[in-house]
Amino acid sequence: MGQDEVTLADLPLREDLRGRSPYGAPQLDVPVRLNTNENPYPPPDALVQDVTDAVREAATALHRYPDRDALALRADLAAYLSRSARVPLTERNVWAANGSNEILQQLLQAFGGPGRTALGFEPSYSMHPIIAAGTRTEWLPAPRRDDFSLDTGRAAGLVAERQPDVVFVTSPNNPTGGSIPLDELAAVLRAAPGIVVVDEAYAEFSAQPSAVRLLAEFPAKLVVSRTMSKAFAFAGGRLGYLAAAPAVVDALQLVRLPYHLSVLTQAAARAALRHAVETLASVAKLAAERDRVAESLQGLGFAPVPSDANFILFGRFGDAAAAWRSYLDHGVLIRDVGIEGHLRVSIGTPEENDAFLEASKEVAR
Amino acid sequence: MGQDEVTLADLPLREDLRGRSPYGAPQLDVPVRLNTNENPYPPPDALVQDVTDAVREAATALHRYPDRDALALRADLAAYLSRSARVPLTERNVWAANGSNEILQQLLQAFGGPGRTALGFEPSYSMHPIIAAGTRTEWLPAPRRDDFSLDTGRAAGLVAERQPDVVFVTSPNNPTGGSIPLDELAAVLRAAPGIVVVDEAYAEFSAQPSAVRLLAEFPAKLVVSRTMSKAFAFAGGRLGYLAAAPAVVDALQLVRLPYHLSVLTQAAARAALRHAVETLASVAKLAAERDRVAESLQGLGFAPVPSDANFILFGRFGDAAAAWRSYLDHGVLIRDVGIEGHLRVSIGTPEENDAFLEASKEVAR
Repeated sequence: MGQDEVTLADLPLREDLRGRSPYGAPQLDVPVRLNTNENPYPPPDALVQDVTDAVREAATALHRYPDRDALALRADLAAYLSRSARVPLTERNVWAANGSNEILQQLLQAFGGPGRTALGFEPSYSMHPIIAAGTRTEWLPAPRRDDFSLDTGRAAGLVAERQPDVVFVTSPNNPTGGSIPLDELAAVLRAAPGIVVVDEAYAEFSAQPSAVRLLAEFPAKLVVSRTMSKAFAFAGGRLGYLAAAPAVVDALQLVRLPYHLSVLTQAAARAALRHAVETLASVAKLAAERDRVAESLQGLGFAPVPSDANFILFGRFGDAAAAWRSYLDHGVLIRDVGIEGHLRVSIGTPEENDAFLEASKEVAR
Repeated sequence: MGQDEVTLADLPLREDLRGRSPYGAPQLDVPVRLNTNENPYPPPDALVQDVTDAVREAATALHRYPDRDALALRADLAAYLSRSARVPLTERNVWAANGSNEILQQLLQAFGGPGRTALGFEPSYSMHPIIAAGTRTEWLPAPRRDDFSLDTGRAAGLVAERQPDVVFVTSPNNPTGGSIPLDELAAVLRAAPGIVVVDEAYAEFSAQPSAVRLLAEFPAKLVVSRTMSKAFAFAGGRLGYLAAAPAVVDALQLVRLPYHLSVLTQAAARAALRHAVETLASVAKLAAERDRVAESLQGLGFAPVPSDANFILFGRFGDAAAAWRSYLDHGVLIRDVGIEGHLRVSIGTPEENDAFLEASKEVAR
């Protein structure tokens, strides 16, 4: 049997992985790509230059391992989060990894795993159950209301009843868009016996304050995960982080792979953070465009779900898969997230959004 | 309870993690650092410039997710490995991740895990059992000869008897330095019921041919893991990879976190690979220095273990921890790898090695 003839079936793959497909949206070459919630605005020239300079300096020491604890980067992230959430944080409160997926994986390695459970309110970020499976944590799906909002009273009751080791609350929720007020989050935290991960990947787009404000009240439970992918327009740089009590950071250092963050990642992320004010200016533009697109969709007879993020879930389609294909035929790539009758569109530049709305007119026919 | 008062004991940490310390050599600021097997030669100016140019270009698209499959990088790695091992490989045979630790973690997520076992011959790379624990794979330690070489006949017998799902064979072995001839590796492969990971992190320093040559014979069993950290002087860039049958790569795509490799990592690693000839010139220098240091240690009355890598394990010390401390007092940081009576020194520049040998004279007194 030659190496090209060996198939997955010939390998001693774990039973639970058999028949699965890799996660990921189709990466298609289409004029208007509004499928992965990227920030459509390229980094400003000054940011590119600063990243380049920082990498040039870091590259002279490529033969040496990076700072294993990424202390300077964590201090910079803490400073940013302190400013934006108005909560004093230091590098001891912050941990960073290659994208928030790695943050979530480390959290489940430390606090989940075999014999433990993680609960999330679906539909939500589809990587939560996938990373739970990858860490052998039993996944407990819990419902949202029919309008995709979270009934936090019911959620708290369910958490009290099921006693999950880890609870995921996504705010704003991906792919539906709604945020959760802090007092309602606090009710879930009070009910939880273990760790509550508030996934704030889209927090900068929301008018709600960050759950970081609840850290003082729930230091042994609350973890707030964040990413530079969206608001910071740094999806290609892969930088996720979290804010929590220092003991949580200590716990993650027991499971992280040593030297997980390269010198290039550390240097580039620090450079990007120095341009936070310019980059985050795109957030207001995108929020305004989001509201315009939602209104236009409504005008076309669609039902957009109210969103605090840089995307909109909208319906209703008799056949969402066919509608997705129809958008693609019009040169617009959006996302079929598997919610019956709905599709998700990321907010792009005004021109991209216009192209999407034009296509929507055609699809609405 | 304030957030600074919360301790690990207050958190719902997994029981098996309680009382553990994070992995990692002390990162001390010492004149001569010979403790983590880094390549002591900084990247040449042309490489730094090429990495910088590549990153500048990649940075203009930082707002977009990277190529999730890293196809161009994998093709470049396949071309390098094809040239050096003289085995035809394509990007379908190669997978890449943030350091070989992530490669090994993905392998155990796919082929190990709860209810499965991984066997390794100790002492060896200490991350193998740590990553096994992190993926909840039961670790089966197996012995080497007293001189740290691998009795492959006995190893094959043990593998046949214990039937581990994954076998790790490190060649050259870290921290002891010896390589394994291909015919002896083949004996272990024949005996193995599952996957055999040949960890070749130090392969470029060895006179033995790469296990990649055995891929045609054992396509459903053999995985060869590699890193750019050592020979390529790219420890700071965090790039590990593997060569295997395409089906193994398919399997890893079921467990990898999506977009795990940043655009910066992909661009910088490709730039570094373009300078392979210059960078790998340091390998011959380091191998010659290794032989000089081993001979000098012998002359001073020490017993160096024969090494094919860029480090030397040597003894015997009545109290290795005290000897390590004594080296440090002389401004030389080496590694106490926990092998009774022995310490490990990485091969540095001729000046660093001279400083180490000077200190050795003092320690020998």
